[in-house]
Amino acid sequence: MKSNAQKLYEGLKADAVLTEQADLRRYLTGFEAEFGYVLTDKNGTRFFTDTRYTEAAGKYFADTDIEVVLFERGATAYSLLEGYKSVAIPVEMTLAPVYNELVKRGYEIVDSSKAIIDAMCVKSDAELENISVACDIADKAIEKLYGTIKEGMTETETAAELEYYMRAMGASGTSFDTIVGFGPNGSMPHYETGNRKLKFGDVVLIDYGCKYHGYCSDSTRTFLFGDDGKHEDFKEKYGIVLDSQLIALDGIRSGMTGKQADALARDHLAKYGLDKYFTHSLGHGLGLNIHEAPRLSPSSDDVLKDGMVFSDEPGVYFESGYGIRIEDTLVLVGGRAQRVTKSDKKLIIV
Amino acid sequence: MKSNAQKLYEGLKADAVLTEQADLRRYLTGFEAEFGYVLTDKNGTRFFTDTRYTEAAGKYFADTDIEVVLFERGATAYSLLEGYKSVAIPVEMTLAPVYNELVKRGYEIVDSSKAIIDAMCVKSDAELENISVACDIADKAIEKLYGTIKEGMTETETAAELEYYMRAMGASGTSFDTIVGFGPNGSMPHYETGNRKLKFGDVVLIDYGCKYHGYCSDSTRTFLFGDDGKHEDFKEKYGIVLDSQLIALDGIRSGMTGKQADALARDHLAKYGLDKYFTHSLGHGLGLNIHEAPRLSPSSDDVLKDGMVFSDEPGVYFESGYGIRIEDTLVLVGGRAQRVTKSDKKLIIV
Repeated sequence: MKSNAQKLYEGLKADAVLTEQADLRRYLTGFEAEFGYVLTDKNGTRFFTDTRYTEAAGKYFADTDIEVVLFERGATAYSLLEGYKSVAIPVEMTLAPVYNELVKRGYEIVDSSKAIIDAMCVKSDAELENISVACDIADKAIEKLYGTIKEGMTETETAAELEYYMRAMGASGTSFDTIVGFGPNGSMPHYETGNRKLKFGDVVLIDYGCKYHGYCSDSTRTFLFGDDGKHEDFKEKYGIVLDSQLIALDGIRSGMTGKQADALARDHLAKYGLDKYFTHSLGHGLGLNIHEAPRLSPSSDDVLKDGMVFSDEPGVYFESGYGIRIEDTLVLVGGRAQRVTKSDKKLIIV
Repeated sequence: MKSNAQKLYEGLKADAVLTEQADLRRYLTGFEAEFGYVLTDKNGTRFFTDTRYTEAAGKYFADTDIEVVLFERGATAYSLLEGYKSVAIPVEMTLAPVYNELVKRGYEIVDSSKAIIDAMCVKSDAELENISVACDIADKAIEKLYGTIKEGMTETETAAELEYYMRAMGASGTSFDTIVGFGPNGSMPHYETGNRKLKFGDVVLIDYGCKYHGYCSDSTRTFLFGDDGKHEDFKEKYGIVLDSQLIALDGIRSGMTGKQADALARDHLAKYGLDKYFTHSLGHGLGLNIHEAPRLSPSSDDVLKDGMVFSDEPGVYFESGYGIRIEDTLVLVGGRAQRVTKSDKKLIIV
């Protein structure tokens, strides 16, 4: 089977295609390494890496169109490029000194950024399978947590337990630092999980994800830890946010822009005067990275396509009060959005 | 107290100092955010961020010399720089399109890379305290694991358990993907933890770390899961690697180069013909990032200084056989290296 590295080369007009960014390297080859260069020219693809990875890479690439080559001590990216006239690199993700040095050495530089971003955001079946396993693990983990979360637990202990469930089910780690916010801490959309202890009647907001074979999940659940009877306002707003999340899920179509998708949820919140508390975007693409193309935001012209995976996460935040965010990972199939995370979204009172 | 942002500004000759990289931003301000710009000029330091962070940042910076400013939708890094003639940015960590745009707009660019890297690698007392807590958590976690690791557990389950112990003791997460390699899997220095089950007599290699208030720990332990009597060769080599690790700990002095430090361990391994199996560097700096300056490698001219924190991690790898790596996090104090990770290194047979 053709590697993504080979496909990228065939779509670009350059003597050689060089890629060194960790996430792009993983996309082009499938192999995870902290260090390496992927170089494709008319003779094929070589993966240059150091002795920490050569044994593992050799096994991994045994039956592929990619050859593993030891990157010798003292070699540089520039020494790999001798003899070529034009070189494709992802300029948008390339550091200034590298770019400037290539210019200085007289290379004609072709920008591979768009080709690689466009390719990465439409997922293959194998990629979807990994994302789907990650989402499934995440769903099971939070359902397990509903049964074990207890009064007096800290936010950090709650995150530890949730992460352990995901890890023990085969996730390789989290896809970002888990956010657990109790009570008013939930009103900060990117709260840093701390040591507040869970109290009866707290609103709990958990934004979390795991990785499976490098691929991310992303979901958020907001629920009540016991109903102290003072939550009429919260329950009403929860219903409105949930409706906005479902309206987006139901209304998003392939061919829409990110802006149009964002408006589906935002317009619904506006009917209740809640749009001014929806202080972030509706969603973002995810895959090997937790944030990738496309963006679903009021200013995004990204066009949604079948095979894209992104989050649907409207939220409202009342400073020093509480926050509500409800998030699923979605995939576009046959023109419409389907859920990949599937755990319950009806208001849960643990 | 003066922020690191203010100190950086005072050491550079530029009208404004702009920093957008997440790790550098955290170093300059102490605040963790996915998005933001730190801008210092003669009037002080402003932290620009979006609505996801303004509430949390406002609280965080309340008693500091840093002012939080909302980064308006539609603003750009360039709009922040209007009116300045010279701007300092960390060129080595800046993406090519940003650098090129600043050049195009006619700014005189001052490179802040060296100043910020030099400042970051010498840790303050507050930073050392965080690293020390992270290391302490890591030590306690592996000691707990020695008591709970069981035949039949997979590498992934073992990593999950170790990570849970660290998380429950207050770590915010891992500082890198935990490496657990059973038997021959330990022979790949950067093995991706998998599903091999633990068997009596396996050599176990665990390279792991956690984060505390953003700061990393890094340590590796190699031990035997039961002694099947076939490990004379392993035990002998373990002793030699441990000696090389201790020789480095004992011999490293402030003022040495990374090359000289590396040679301490490498020369000892060479006496036994093992240097050819020591296929990586002796160590690397760590702090907010798991890999920072200084490098301790055969080609490193970095000069070691009091306050620097780095790993001491000689290792030998026998393809398809086993691997041995013994690693501590060290700190230079009063000219000599001290251990920050302190768990036992005598060969442990669980």
